[in-house]
Amino acid sequence: MSAQKPTLFTCISPALLHLYDLNNAAVVIIDVFRATSTIASALYNGAKCVIPVDSVSKAIALSKNINGIAAGERDGKIADGLEYGNSPLEYHPEFIKDRTLVLTTTNGTRLLQMALDNHAETIITGSFPNLGAVCNFLIQQNKNVVLGCAGWKDRYNLEDTLFAGAVIYHIKEHFTVHCDSSLTAETMYVQHKDDLPGFATKLTHYHRLVERFGLIEDIRFCLTENVANVLPLYKEGLLMKG
Amino acid sequence: MSAQKPTLFTCISPALLHLYDLNNAAVVIIDVFRATSTIASALYNGAKCVIPVDSVSKAIALSKNINGIAAGERDGKIADGLEYGNSPLEYHPEFIKDRTLVLTTTNGTRLLQMALDNHAETIITGSFPNLGAVCNFLIQQNKNVVLGCAGWKDRYNLEDTLFAGAVIYHIKEHFTVHCDSSLTAETMYVQHKDDLPGFATKLTHYHRLVERFGLIEDIRFCLTENVANVLPLYKEGLLMKG
Repeated sequence: MSAQKPTLFTCISPALLHLYDLNNAAVVIIDVFRATSTIASALYNGAKCVIPVDSVSKAIALSKNINGIAAGERDGKIADGLEYGNSPLEYHPEFIKDRTLVLTTTNGTRLLQMALDNHAETIITGSFPNLGAVCNFLIQQNKNVVLGCAGWKDRYNLEDTLFAGAVIYHIKEHFTVHCDSSLTAETMYVQHKDDLPGFATKLTHYHRLVERFGLIEDIRFCLTENVANVLPLYKEGLLMKG
Repeated sequence: MSAQKPTLFTCISPALLHLYDLNNAAVVIIDVFRATSTIASALYNGAKCVIPVDSVSKAIALSKNINGIAAGERDGKIADGLEYGNSPLEYHPEFIKDRTLVLTTTNGTRLLQMALDNHAETIITGSFPNLGAVCNFLIQQNKNVVLGCAGWKDRYNLEDTLFAGAVIYHIKEHFTVHCDSSLTAETMYVQHKDDLPGFATKLTHYHRLVERFGLIEDIRFCLTENVANVLPLYKEGLLMKG
C-alpha cells in the first residue's frame, strides 16, 4: 500500500494566499517578470546571498551597513533612489560574485513577506531559469506544496501561472494535485511550452515591460528554462543557494 | 475613425472584485454550478421573478410575506430549513410559472451583493443555458463589461471561468479585451468547448456535486448552451427577464 501523497495547490494571486494552509508546506514564490528570475540569476552568478526587503529605504539602509548592492523596481522601472534595478541581466558574475544583493520589488518580495506572515514552513523562489532545481527540491522534500503566484498588484497574471504549470507538468506524479488553479496552469503551460516567447506577446506584463521599457532581452531570459539552475532557499531573512 | 471600444475584464474570484471599476459597467454574475443556471431556468420557465437574498432566514421570511418559494443551498445541498434547493431542474414550468423564487446560495448571491456594494451600474446573471442572451445584451449595451466569477468560497473555479471564456469568444470583437484572466478564460473555453461535460469531470466542483450528491443531470444542464435563453436583469432587488 503506497503512502498518501502530499498535496499541491496553486495560488494564483497574493489576495488568495490566506485560503491555503502554509504550515508544514513548501511555498514557492513565483514572480517570473522579473524578481524571482533575477534572484536565480544573481545566485547562479555567484552572489553570496539575496536579501529581499519591502521598501526602498530599507534596501538603501541595509546595503550601506553590509556593503551590499541596493536594487529594485517600482512599477517596472528602477525605483527612485536606487542605482540598480530588477533585471536578471544586470547581475553578471563580474559584478555580483561574492556580493550581497538587497532587493525590493513590487510583487515578488511582497508575496514572500506574506508567506512569512502566514507561517510558511519552507520558502523557495521559482522561475523558468531555475525550474529544474525547484522541481528536484519539491520532490525530495515530499511535503505539501503551495505554488504562490505574485501576480501584478493582486491581479492574476499568466506568466506566473505558466511557471506553476511547468512545475506541475514535471512533478505531478509525486503529489495529489486537485485544484482548478493547478489544472488551468498545467493546461496553459502544455499548450504554450514550445513557444513561450511567442505566447508572451499577448500578456499584459509583456506590454508593460517591452513597449514601455524595451526589456525584450529580459523577457527572453525570464522565459528560458534552466539557464540559472540554482535553488534559492529562504532562511532567517536571506535567500541562499540551497 | 472608429470610436474607442468599451473594455472587458474577467474577475476570477470575488476576492479580487475590488480591483475592477464597476461604475458605468455591466457586471455579469457567473455561478455556473448552479445559482445562475437555476436563475435562468426559473425565469425561462415562467417565474415572475427571482429575488436573491444572502441568508436562509431572509429567504424564509420574505417568501412568507409574498407567497413565494424559499429556496437555496449551503455547501452544495438544500439549506437547512428550506424545502427547495439550487437545482435548475427543480423549476419546471408547472411548478414555477408566475411564482416568485427567493433564492440564497453559497457563492452566486454573495457575489451579486458584492457587486451592488461596489456600485455596479448594471447587473445581469450569466450561465451556459443563457449564453446567447447575455452576449446579445452586452453587445447592445456598448459599455464596459466585468465578467464576475463567483468561484467557491473565494477560490478560483474553472466552470465559471469557462463561461467567461465563452462570452469572450462570442463578443470580443466589440470590446477592448486585454487582461490575462480573459486570455486564460477564452483559451480554456476554446480548448474544451466541444466536450464541456467530458472536461468537467476534472473539476473540483464536479466531484463535490456528482460524487457527493449525485447531481449529474444538473451538471449536464448547467453545461448546455442556450437551453434557457433569457436575460436575468437585476433591478431594485429583483431579477426579471430583461
